[in-house]
Amino acid sequence: MSTLQNDLLLRALKGEKVERPPVWMMRQAGRYLPDYIKLRQQYDFFTRVQTPELACEITMQPIDQVGVDAAIIFSDILVIPQAMGLEVLLEEGRGPILPKTVQTENDINQLRTTDVAENLNYVMQALTLTKKVLNGRVPLIGFAGAPWTILCYMVEGKGSKSFDKAKQFCFTSPELAHKLLQKITDVTITYLNAQVDAGADLVQVFDSWSGMLSPADFKTFAQPYLIQISDAVSKKAPVILFPKGSWYALPELSKSSAAGLGIDWTVTPKMAREMTNNSITLQGNFDPSRLLSPIKDIKKAVTEMIDAFGTQRYIANLGHGILPNVPVDHARAFVDAVKEYQPTNTLITA
Amino acid sequence: MSTLQNDLLLRALKGEKVERPPVWMMRQAGRYLPDYIKLRQQYDFFTRVQTPELACEITMQPIDQVGVDAAIIFSDILVIPQAMGLEVLLEEGRGPILPKTVQTENDINQLRTTDVAENLNYVMQALTLTKKVLNGRVPLIGFAGAPWTILCYMVEGKGSKSFDKAKQFCFTSPELAHKLLQKITDVTITYLNAQVDAGADLVQVFDSWSGMLSPADFKTFAQPYLIQISDAVSKKAPVILFPKGSWYALPELSKSSAAGLGIDWTVTPKMAREMTNNSITLQGNFDPSRLLSPIKDIKKAVTEMIDAFGTQRYIANLGHGILPNVPVDHARAFVDAVKEYQPTNTLITA
Repeated sequence: MSTLQNDLLLRALKGEKVERPPVWMMRQAGRYLPDYIKLRQQYDFFTRVQTPELACEITMQPIDQVGVDAAIIFSDILVIPQAMGLEVLLEEGRGPILPKTVQTENDINQLRTTDVAENLNYVMQALTLTKKVLNGRVPLIGFAGAPWTILCYMVEGKGSKSFDKAKQFCFTSPELAHKLLQKITDVTITYLNAQVDAGADLVQVFDSWSGMLSPADFKTFAQPYLIQISDAVSKKAPVILFPKGSWYALPELSKSSAAGLGIDWTVTPKMAREMTNNSITLQGNFDPSRLLSPIKDIKKAVTEMIDAFGTQRYIANLGHGILPNVPVDHARAFVDAVKEYQPTNTLITA
Repeated sequence: MSTLQNDLLLRALKGEKVERPPVWMMRQAGRYLPDYIKLRQQYDFFTRVQTPELACEITMQPIDQVGVDAAIIFSDILVIPQAMGLEVLLEEGRGPILPKTVQTENDINQLRTTDVAENLNYVMQALTLTKKVLNGRVPLIGFAGAPWTILCYMVEGKGSKSFDKAKQFCFTSPELAHKLLQKITDVTITYLNAQVDAGADLVQVFDSWSGMLSPADFKTFAQPYLIQISDAVSKKAPVILFPKGSWYALPELSKSSAAGLGIDWTVTPKMAREMTNNSITLQGNFDPSRLLSPIKDIKKAVTEMIDAFGTQRYIANLGHGILPNVPVDHARAFVDAVKEYQPTNTLITA
């Protein structure tokens, strides 16, 4: 195991002093990068995800080309339903489709829970290979979808504006919902721990659809499972929880075992710091659409963002995944602006 | 003009004492009602909207069948872009499409602003007819989309998960964006005032996509235009602003000329009351998906909601439009639960 040359991200998560905030971007591997788009023309999605050499190559692209302070393994949150026995179709330019959804207790009983990490061995291989190729340049992030978000896809069978079928399932059959959520949670804990063993220095849990839930329903159907995962995996590696849209959960989650909390751009840095009582590392929260602004505006907005969060206990990132139509030099401008950050008030004297 | 027999909604908006909270549901006219679905098989969307007798009939259905305390005229927020000269296609089961989008200054200059209210005379006729048919049973609500939301459709040309093209337009051409927003605002003020003249007792402004904006961008691209509309129309009738997802704007909007603020289910009643300093009537915020719960759970959740908001300065409603797959008896259970409300703590003695 090589010692990290750039451990800004890990230090920020521990609350240790950093020279500047670390920066990475959700979905940085893929989508907007021309070299990725070339690979996409040669290999279908699951070939890219399941071939360790391809996943490693894609994971490395933004390290070399955009200069981020962390690598995040190229994969997908839907490998979990797939490994649990559900077919997942991912066609380019369309959302995911799960032809057979989970509706009954029997459907839940049939979901595989043993051998899931083994079925996902290709992810571990990709992590181990990438860790080796990185050779200590930056930390490597593993990840998984949160149980609520995975339930959304399992029950709904596809993306949705409201995920009302998933909610209906939870509201009408709460016992089944909890059984399913627990099953996903157990598998996810095993999976994330295996990712750490395979080389991930930290992991992030994406609750992409938690913001669809009311605060009370979040506490019922999302939060307990996020906490379980955080508690179980934090023993091995730092955990970042990203419950997108669930700003209301910040106070409680800031008291959890998680090392960091991701936030989207609908919360101001000031509100997020207040809600978390300055007690946890925050990650975010640049509006991904803002990367479509002129470069000078991107740099100005990044400076304002860091001014507001402060340089400590902070990880510069987007508030959601990078958009496919972002020019690479705009992504690079975002990263450069973090690296070149000088506080706006430096020159102000009383 | 007949005197209203049920003026609960107007009294709640004025902050006057009410015996119980008024209740209505966004999108209550249409979608889930079997009689509406029958009409949909006979007449296409714009025929239904543009034929005053049909619009009136659809508007009346939930008054008779579900027992709500207000009628909201059956129409669509996209009649404004249509009246300003843009083609709008609305096919059943698909989102709206605007084949020619707004991209340039010339596109903005070509948008019609005069005669827009005249072009929308069918809405005024529908309001006048419905007002007559209502014969004072309940108040009649007029509505329009907010300028930011209308800009989203004009620039993007269709629905979107992120409205990044609309945002890119605002971020790269803010002067054009403000010119377009002002033009929409001017037309909307004229339109809403004409609705009041035609019979609307109050109006609601739907900013369905404001929650896509950061708090700073909301203040730049959404709030000023909401305020302009509220200031101009409040002179004639009470205005409810509903900036969906923009919980962060509640403190400022509570100081505006608006009579009420709509909120979605991601804010707890307690937080919303605190953020608005108990100074304005709040409307909402039942998760529409919760109407798919068993009826006894709907009734329990409604009681908890009213317990939390209190019965005064409060309008019971959903946090967004009713879903098409809600059974009518569930919608009725929601309304009945408000009408039958007894505080949970009534029987508790110290």
